[in-house]
Amino acid sequence: MAEVRVGIIMGSDSDLAVMSEAAKVLERFGIGYEMAVISAHRTPERAVEYASSARSRGLKAIIAGAGMAAHLPGVLAALTDLPVIGVPLKSKALEGVDALYAIVQMPPGVPVATVAINGAQNAGILAAQIIGAHDSAVAEKLRGFKADMKKANIEKSEKLERIGYTEYMKQ
Amino acid sequence: MAEVRVGIIMGSDSDLAVMSEAAKVLERFGIGYEMAVISAHRTPERAVEYASSARSRGLKAIIAGAGMAAHLPGVLAALTDLPVIGVPLKSKALEGVDALYAIVQMPPGVPVATVAINGAQNAGILAAQIIGAHDSAVAEKLRGFKADMKKANIEKSEKLERIGYTEYMKQ
Amino acid sequence: MAEVRVGIIMGSDSDLAVMSEAAKVLERFGIGYEMAVISAHRTPERAVEYASSARSRGLKAIIAGAGMAAHLPGVLAALTDLPVIGVPLKSKALEGVDALYAIVQMPPGVPVATVAINGAQNAGILAAQIIGAHDSAVAEKLRGFKADMKKANIEKSEKLERIGYTEYMKQ
Amino acid sequence: MAEVRVGIIMGSDSDLAVMSEAAKVLERFGIGYEMAVISAHRTPERAVEYASSARSRGLKAIIAGAGMAAHLPGVLAALTDLPVIGVPLKSKALEGVDALYAIVQMPPGVPVATVAINGAQNAGILAAQIIGAHDSAVAEKLRGFKADMKKANIEKSEKLERIGYTEYMKQ
Amino acid sequence: MAEVRVGIIMGSDSDLAVMSEAAKVLERFGIGYEMAVISAHRTPERAVEYASSARSRGLKAIIAGAGMAAHLPGVLAALTDLPVIGVPLKSKALEGVDALYAIVQMPPGVPVATVAINGAQNAGILAAQIIGAHDSAVAEKLRGFKADMKKANIEKSEKLERIGYTEYMKQ
Amino acid sequence: MAEVRVGIIMGSDSDLAVMSEAAKVLERFGIGYEMAVISAHRTPERAVEYASSARSRGLKAIIAGAGMAAHLPGVLAALTDLPVIGVPLKSKALEGVDALYAIVQMPPGVPVATVAINGAQNAGILAAQIIGAHDSAVAEKLRGFKADMKKANIEKSEKLERIGYTEYMKQ
Amino acid sequence: MAEVRVGIIMGSDSDLAVMSEAAKVLERFGIGYEMAVISAHRTPERAVEYASSARSRGLKAIIAGAGMAAHLPGVLAALTDLPVIGVPLKSKALEGVDALYAIVQMPPGVPVATVAINGAQNAGILAAQIIGAHDSAVAEKLRGFKADMKKANIEKSEKLERIGYTEYMKQ
Amino acid sequence: MAEVRVGIIMGSDSDLAVMSEAAKVLERFGIGYEMAVISAHRTPERAVEYASSARSRGLKAIIAGAGMAAHLPGVLAALTDLPVIGVPLKSKALEGVDALYAIVQMPPGVPVATVAINGAQNAGILAAQIIGAHDSAVAEKLRGFKADMKKANIEKSEKLERIGYTEYMKQ
Repeated sequence: MAEVRVGIIMGSDSDLAVMSEAAKVLERFGIGYEMAVISAHRTPERAVEYASSARSRGLKAIIAGAGMAAHLPGVLAALTDLPVIGVPLKSKALEGVDALYAIVQMPPGVPVATVAINGAQNAGILAAQIIGAHDSAVAEKLRGFKADMKKANIEKSEKLERIGYTEYMKQ
Repeated sequence: MAEVRVGIIMGSDSDLAVMSEAAKVLERFGIGYEMAVISAHRTPERAVEYASSARSRGLKAIIAGAGMAAHLPGVLAALTDLPVIGVPLKSKALEGVDALYAIVQMPPGVPVATVAINGAQNAGILAAQIIGAHDSAVAEKLRGFKADMKKANIEKSEKLERIGYTEYMKQ
Repeated sequence: MAEVRVGIIMGSDSDLAVMSEAAKVLERFGIGYEMAVISAHRTPERAVEYASSARSRGLKAIIAGAGMAAHLPGVLAALTDLPVIGVPLKSKALEGVDALYAIVQMPPGVPVATVAINGAQNAGILAAQIIGAHDSAVAEKLRGFKADMKKANIEKSEKLERIGYTEYMKQ
Repeated sequence: MAEVRVGIIMGSDSDLAVMSEAAKVLERFGIGYEMAVISAHRTPERAVEYASSARSRGLKAIIAGAGMAAHLPGVLAALTDLPVIGVPLKSKALEGVDALYAIVQMPPGVPVATVAINGAQNAGILAAQIIGAHDSAVAEKLRGFKADMKKANIEKSEKLERIGYTEYMKQ
Repeated sequence: MAEVRVGIIMGSDSDLAVMSEAAKVLERFGIGYEMAVISAHRTPERAVEYASSARSRGLKAIIAGAGMAAHLPGVLAALTDLPVIGVPLKSKALEGVDALYAIVQMPPGVPVATVAINGAQNAGILAAQIIGAHDSAVAEKLRGFKADMKKANIEKSEKLERIGYTEYMKQ
Repeated sequence: MAEVRVGIIMGSDSDLAVMSEAAKVLERFGIGYEMAVISAHRTPERAVEYASSARSRGLKAIIAGAGMAAHLPGVLAALTDLPVIGVPLKSKALEGVDALYAIVQMPPGVPVATVAINGAQNAGILAAQIIGAHDSAVAEKLRGFKADMKKANIEKSEKLERIGYTEYMKQ
Repeated sequence: MAEVRVGIIMGSDSDLAVMSEAAKVLERFGIGYEMAVISAHRTPERAVEYASSARSRGLKAIIAGAGMAAHLPGVLAALTDLPVIGVPLKSKALEGVDALYAIVQMPPGVPVATVAINGAQNAGILAAQIIGAHDSAVAEKLRGFKADMKKANIEKSEKLERIGYTEYMKQ
Repeated sequence: MAEVRVGIIMGSDSDLAVMSEAAKVLERFGIGYEMAVISAHRTPERAVEYASSARSRGLKAIIAGAGMAAHLPGVLAALTDLPVIGVPLKSKALEGVDALYAIVQMPPGVPVATVAINGAQNAGILAAQIIGAHDSAVAEKLRGFKADMKKANIEKSEKLERIGYTEYMKQ
């Protein structure tokens, strides 16, 4: 099994449906990861412990997803010098903008690399890019991923041109 | 000197001009307080330590002000069962709404009693109300404060009626 | 039956599904409460009466939930020196931000302790914290509540680690 | 002196610079008015008293300006069946959107006729329109006001056409 | 049948479900009204014609509802000296805030009396208040309406107190 | 078949349901168009190619729809001197305001003609107006379109007047 | 002098400082224009007249700038089949988002080609692009404009590389 | 001189005052960087070229700052598999929220690691963290940076405790 290089942390197990997208894309890139439910507010000691030991356990990046007043990514970032990727999660009110602001607007000195609201897949890709900056095998896979996206996009365009929008929308 | 019953914490000394309003109103109510600069992101261990020991040191409430992705109040609230009052501070962008969302939108289980953007004076009054709920001397002072506000408001209204808006605006 | 120490007020009975979460958590803490439907706009005299007599009837805190231009918490706060906890309720438009602003942005002199949009459970916890600041039995229960949250969070994390996200999401 | 038909109320004397625009336009229309500083939060009893007696004192409309969690217009509207015109005032944060939402989003049953942020002049015109709906002398003056606006607009356009934008901007 | 004193205008027949609430409340107050579909953008000439002749046809107020870039109320207000009441309608995006800003933020000289998003019932009440300012029979009905709201609110509160929230929520 | 004068581009085939409205309205005006799926992020080279050759292939305008951080219209506009019409698409969070800002707020030098969120039909009409500015046959059809809208609007109004809102809403 | 092909309209002469940027860029492209102050609310008849006769007077596009509840572009668009370009102007509150929504969110059938807040220069360029779609001399000038922007951008970059950011910022 | 491992790109030289903060912090960490002015809209070919060759030229991360409809970071990210860090820049309207949305809300497949509005210093730190994930010398410097922030924070707190807020604010 692949060496664990990325931690995927979420504040609550209700975030799993979104956050599992990060895991799936890391699997595609052959990058080992670990997942945990750790809340900045309910289990702050575990957050401290997790972040403090992350580098020595071999992690290269931490992905953290949280909703509402989403402190988890920032709290982890305060306690590690690894890059922390924050995923703002949309919850029942405010369309996710609360989590976005609570993650992206980090004060000077402690950045969080923020992706789109519910953008867990992109968080996984960003983690792969961070690893790929120094690992050419991963970089190669990232190029393959880009190529596949490109191909799929072109095929859709050709199909649309071929059959027209009326047919396309029926399928 | 008055026994310390309220902690006033801010993330940075640049918050002092706003946060000192909380101190001033507590002085008026004769409630002892302590002030400290503690950052959730730059000195997370101190935040843990401060919140964890707050009750045993005799505090009844903690006031915490922070701007941007304002995690300080929530981080303190995670580690104490005292009421934590959050003051969202306006910084250079977003009109303070980032700090407001990052403080008020706490997830279930860990509340922060949030006041208005830059509302440090109200944070001090709220701390006094929390103490006053069980301390009739403080409650008495709160009633005096309300009476003074009322009197000032009425005097302004009478003056406006007496001299008219043109004169009033010249003064 | 427990002595009534908290009032839970809502502007309309359509708010009951959300506001009952405050009642449930107070029951858990063994804190007596009373509930009423009082509108700042439809029954302003009752609001005046309720707030004015709250302290003398033994209340330690008032929880008030309202939606849209949510004036109820502020109107109650104007007439009592008890801490008033405001719960902004999400209604059909604007994602609850109207109620949030109308509650949290109280002008200097009259604070409302605001919690998250639809955050009635947190309002109940905050009321318990206000009581617990001077009542060690309630404080003890708050610590138990925190411990239970922590335990549940850890158990979920262990389960996730044990069975993986694919299995977890099926359950 | 003209019979008092409009009340202009503001929460604080710091609102006077904006709210005096309502007075000025009513003077132009020859409509008598009274001005007072009444706070929904600092002098709630005066707000109750003012609104309750407004009709019997001959008022036809009330203009109320307030900032932040601007409850004054709604609190007055709760206690009178006269039309209440609300002026949201811009304060130090949030660009006035807090006051706008706190005034315009009134729940079913108690409307506030809301004008633009800091739109006190328009509040005065709206009060005149309310009176003018049943008073043809005032209606006549409103038509004159519209005609003057039209004339000024046309004169500016003609001047711009005549001298060009470069010259116009120098003046 | 009652003399027509209020016009209820909407930009599209898809607005009818909301705007009919204005009609219903006017019926309750015994105030005659007329309804029309007039678009500021699709039938601008009809808007001009309608507004220009409104006073001479005996109207005392115009209620106009529109969504998105909601120009209808302002366009009508430009062409009459009657009070125009604007109802911002929520459409598929932006939660109705587009219509709110497009209606309430009228520039100096031409006010629109704006009510809440989808607040057509309040628009009807406001029209009644405008008429009631000079018509004591309507004013009397407005007082009856307030009394009914008050009574319903109190009955709900008493029922809640009597049967508790668990029972109440089952019904 | 009509000469192709408009390109309709979308970032993903999931945008087709909305973007096909542009095609339909162009068909109505007898204006030839082509459709393609081209992503600014997944197939940037195709975007460059498409925009660079658009004029020489006879296009008069390009319509581009995209959601989230919607760069497609701006990227195309950077590479052509044809007018580019941007359609911000609503996606799962933020109500479409992300796409709106990412399209309309183009920096000085490179405009995008932005229409409403999901406003693909209007994008088609705007393309027709651009062509119609120099093609009187298309201009004629635009006038017919306006006349039809007007007629439909009037018929609805007459029907509403005839059968009343209760009947109308049943249909 | 160049034939007038573009109208630049603004609601108030206070908009001239911003709107003159549209004129300047049209001058650069050698495109004749006319300027007028026409308010949708203060001189609605002139707006009707202007838009209705625009095509027959030889205009190819209309640029309209307005702030607050900015109805001018939409009102003109309702009455012409020429493309109307809307410039949302920032005024004293709400950061220009009121004007943006009031211009861009046009309902189906009547588009306004919206540019950035205060983006009058881009409005001028867009008008040139509309003309340039059918006029190769203008298209040529647009290409020259793009080339100049490119050159200036590259020169700045080279200078930055040459002298470093410290020196560059001193100049 | 240090090997160039980070590119700092900005859309306009007016962004230099903010973006130079990224350079300064990289200098502190001893990480070589290059700076360039490249606009996604004015020099799109240079953006393509820069991003496409970034990896082969030895870069490990790209920092890109842009304001308004800030496409630069996303356009670069489309053409490289290196991590791209986006800095949303505040411009004259909308408080920087336009740039934030245009950068952070990247669609699936192409992430941009977004930092706070005007957060160029944090962008520099994040770049250092990305390098530090595989370079222990840089990691060591990051730990020193954290330690210095901590020390400064504690010293300020001690000074505040020692001299009180009145004295502190005088200095």
